[in-house]
Amino acid sequence: MANQLVGEANMAIVAELIEGGADYYCVVDGAENVRQLGRFFAARGLELQVLIELGVSGGRCGCRDAAQVEALVAAIAEQPALRLVGIEGYEGMIAGGDEVAAVRAYGERLVETVRALQASGVLACEAPIVTASGSKWFDLIAEAFDQAELREHYTPVLRPGCYVVHDHRLYAGAMAEVKARQPRLEGELRPALEVFAHVQSLPEPGLAVVALGKRDIGHEPDLPLPLRLYPLVSQPGAASTPVDVTAWRTTHIMDQHVFLAIPHDAEMDSAGIAVGDVIAFGTSHPCLTFDKWRRLLLVDEALRVQESLATCF
Amino acid sequence: MANQLVGEANMAIVAELIEGGADYYCVVDGAENVRQLGRFFAARGLELQVLIELGVSGGRCGCRDAAQVEALVAAIAEQPALRLVGIEGYEGMIAGGDEVAAVRAYGERLVETVRALQASGVLACEAPIVTASGSKWFDLIAEAFDQAELREHYTPVLRPGCYVVHDHRLYAGAMAEVKARQPRLEGELRPALEVFAHVQSLPEPGLAVVALGKRDIGHEPDLPLPLRLYPLVSQPGAASTPVDVTAWRTTHIMDQHVFLAIPHDAEMDSAGIAVGDVIAFGTSHPCLTFDKWRRLLLVDEALRVQESLATCF
Repeated sequence: MANQLVGEANMAIVAELIEGGADYYCVVDGAENVRQLGRFFAARGLELQVLIELGVSGGRCGCRDAAQVEALVAAIAEQPALRLVGIEGYEGMIAGGDEVAAVRAYGERLVETVRALQASGVLACEAPIVTASGSKWFDLIAEAFDQAELREHYTPVLRPGCYVVHDHRLYAGAMAEVKARQPRLEGELRPALEVFAHVQSLPEPGLAVVALGKRDIGHEPDLPLPLRLYPLVSQPGAASTPVDVTAWRTTHIMDQHVFLAIPHDAEMDSAGIAVGDVIAFGTSHPCLTFDKWRRLLLVDEALRVQESLATCF
Repeated sequence: MANQLVGEANMAIVAELIEGGADYYCVVDGAENVRQLGRFFAARGLELQVLIELGVSGGRCGCRDAAQVEALVAAIAEQPALRLVGIEGYEGMIAGGDEVAAVRAYGERLVETVRALQASGVLACEAPIVTASGSKWFDLIAEAFDQAELREHYTPVLRPGCYVVHDHRLYAGAMAEVKARQPRLEGELRPALEVFAHVQSLPEPGLAVVALGKRDIGHEPDLPLPLRLYPLVSQPGAASTPVDVTAWRTTHIMDQHVFLAIPHDAEMDSAGIAVGDVIAFGTSHPCLTFDKWRRLLLVDEALRVQESLATCF
């Protein structure tokens, strides 16, 4: 779990998982949390595997410097129920300036830190874990781990979560940058998450109101991206032949509506678009769409449903 | 349903409800949708009650002017399965300039429109419905309906949905404005929706990272508002006596984390705040929090759970 484990109710859930046989790890970045975890898991007669989180200044969680790491190692050593087995980081918080250089430096810092901990004998396992990487810079983190030949004595783990569905702009752009940095790389991630919605109203020239809102789709950093229009009403005979509408533009999103700027020649009751047509939208970034649906549908190229997937939020 | 009914799958759901005895109404604002509804419900041997939506220029759905209303009335008249029983509007789209005057004018326009329709004999019921009002201007819409003595021959309906839980800033401010406009009004709406989360990390002086993110709470137009801290860890003996932290400020929200600017004297391991403490947050506006939870808990003043409420998203 690439997060701190906080709160006794949450610790109790994890304790049950460990008792059930789970190989569980969480991250720690503060002495108080370490004491709470040590006390709780000792009382349950269990051992908890922890990774020290390495943060960046001005970032989110995680130790900012070597002194904080050292203090945390000492705090963990005082808790017999905790086993320190590696380090964790997230370079996705780095922004501004020469980001590539900063991410590379962060990767090196992870490597140096885990090596220093290993050398000092505080890591209680054979092949300590060192893990980082969001969905934007995974190649740079992989390079840092690879150049340091971590695989021999450590367990390097990348965890860019957006590979599951990728997206249509933010991570599509990040993927293009990865490809530019790594010309030998074959293949690439492709966007695989779309949300479908009806055209609900065509109240003014150039404006389509679509039945898609903040309740249905993530909208940050980019508003939903119109991809294809299925002309169910405007051209019923061609309903299964979608029209490319990637040139159209979402101008506004509300709780339950999207405003779409459409060409004036597609307006109102013309053949171009009609209330009742369906538009497929892409997202950027993808993550905040999952929590809005209890089920996702896995479809084939012809949109035939292959599987219904339950979400867990 | 204060929205257009679009798409055959949705029409089928409504048809089933009507067959089951539901007294259902939806709004219409375009001839194509009217034709689709007329065709569908005629084929099912059902009658559908519709209200004409009156929109505002540059707004969302709804007829922009009297000519559009007239054309829509004619389109409805061609569909024997549709019964026109009133008009609907939403003044919440009005923004900028003298908003109070604009909302009042919109209320008058609603009244005039429903009277004109009634006079022309196209409304197929005894006491036609006229409905509007979001959660900000409901007093002005009520005034417009009241001054026109609509209650005698019409069915005026207000529908400010945020009354269910109200909120801690946007609608709290709107309520204060309602009270200022209506000095005779007794009582007021009070905020009733809070989201609780653990302090997850205290990585830098003045910064608390809280385990609350865009997946847990609405964050527009205002970031989550810290209300009370329960010092479960920092002062376990006083854990049930919350500390007022309304002076603290959320500076940033991510998918699963909130950044809270805290006083420096509350930092780190001091008694003021500790990882594991719980903070109650308010929202503004409230609506986009409901869809993030499958269950809400109704609690009493001592936070004892009275009821578990299922959400329907």
